This record gives sequence, C-alpha cells and structure tokens, in this order.
Amino acid sequence: MRLTKKADYALRAVVYISQLPDGQLASIGEIATAQRTPREFLAKILKQLTRLSILKSYQGIRGGYKLARNSAEVSFLDVIEAVEGKIFLNQCCKETDDCCEMYSDCQLRHFWRRQQALYIASLARETMDRYRDKMAT
Amino acid sequence: MRLTKKADYALRAVVYISQLPDGQLASIGEIATAQRTPREFLAKILKQLTRLSILKSYQGIRGGYKLARNSAEVSFLDVIEAVEGKIFLNQCCKETDDCCEMYSDCQLRHFWRRQQALYIASLARETMDRYRDKMAT
Repeated sequence: MRLTKKADYALRAVVYISQLPDGQLASIGEIATAQRTPREFLAKILKQLTRLSILKSYQGIRGGYKLARNSAEVSFLDVIEAVEGKIFLNQCCKETDDCCEMYSDCQLRHFWRRQQALYIASLARETMDRYRDKMAT
Repeated sequence: MRLTKKADYALRAVVYISQLPDGQLASIGEIATAQRTPREFLAKILKQLTRLSILKSYQGIRGGYKLARNSAEVSFLDVIEAVEGKIFLNQCCKETDDCCEMYSDCQLRHFWRRQQALYIASLARETMDRYRDKMAT
C-alpha cells in the first residue's frame, strides 16, 4: 500500500526538472546526483516519462531532459500513472463491475471508491508549477 | 499502491462478523463461504485479528468468532494495520527524520505526510457500527 520506489524517483526527477531555469536541460547524471537516484534505473524511468509525453529528451553532448508541457499541466497523478499505470487503492476501485468475485453483494466498494476519488483528486491537484519557486524544505 | 488481498479479506471478515445478531458467533467455514475467501488463508487472518484484540475466538463445536470490542471501536484502520502493520503511502510518511537518503533536502514529504494524514483519518472514521444495519448494496 505504498508508492513504489520507481514512482518516488520519477516524481523527484520531474520536480527537479520543473525547477530548471527556462530553456535549460538536465542530464541523467545531473538528476541522479542531485536526487541520489541509481543512474540506470533513472535512465529507464526518464525514457518511460518521455514516451508518455511528460518529458522531452534532446540528444547530443548538450542534450538532456525538460518538461514536455507547461509545469501547471503536469501533476503528480500524471507522473505516477505514467510509471505505475492506473492507481487503484483496492481492487474494487476499478470502474467496471467485475472488480472481484464479491461484486454482487459487496458492502465495501462504496467506501473504497470514495477514498480513491479523493486520493486521485489530490494527486491531480498537485502540479509541478507549485514547485517552480520552492526551495528545498 | 493497493490494499493487499489479506487486508481486503480481513476487512470483509470483520464487517461480516460485525453484522451478526448479538451474541452469535461465526465459524471460519461460514465466513469463508459467505465472503468467498480461501479457508486456510482466512484462518490465518482471523488468528492474527484475534491476537491483536480485534476479534475474540471461542473454542468448541459451537465456537467461532465475534468482535472483541464494541463495533464503534473497531475501524478500518485497526483492521488493516492489524494485518499489514503501519500504513505508509510513501516512505517519507514515517514520522522519523530518516525516511530516506534525501531527507535533508526533500521537497515532497510535506505533500505525502498531508496525504497520509487524510487517508489515515478516513480509515479511522470508518468504524464497523456503520455496517451493523446495512444491507449488501
């Protein structure tokens, strides 16, 4: 019931990239050092974030990564779902009616679906522009 | 980032037991059938819930389980933590300051600690008395 290391590293990398001065790119090595993230693992994560249009990558000796969209348009939800897939707090949070073998007389799914909606909304509200001008706290 | 099957089965079993008429006990077989839960796995879960004073078990041919406390005093949080241990949405939700190698300049833990507090509060508010008179929905 915990965020994966992968999603945690992804979030930290995207926050780091969001805080770059306009027009500046960050290399894998730079992010790995700043965020103390294993370099190989980070490379895979950044590739995935690029494929899903969260980041844009530039080749070459001065290459690196920047956000593919405005920082107000990249949320924690976007980043987590890009690396982990859809978030479900419980199996009954799926929107289809075949969530589990107890569907027909389940008493718990209303609670879980409400929790899920609240959690997803919080993650969607937390956008990268909120971190643009923040110092480390 | 999802509730374990174990915690899901535990919750369903405790909700089932909460809905028994006063003084009635539920056997493992009865709960397993009603909640479509693997019997051996359920037996282990019920044992754990008994050890942690969520349930009380009675031996003998008419034995079984009932709540160890008033249904208003058993929350989803109690049940989940009894079988899964402390809930942390992310590693930075630990209350100590050694949550991870980034502690000294982490920008994310305020967000995660706030989420964690909201989630824990919702789970603590969801007590078994709310299910006492509910029909399956």
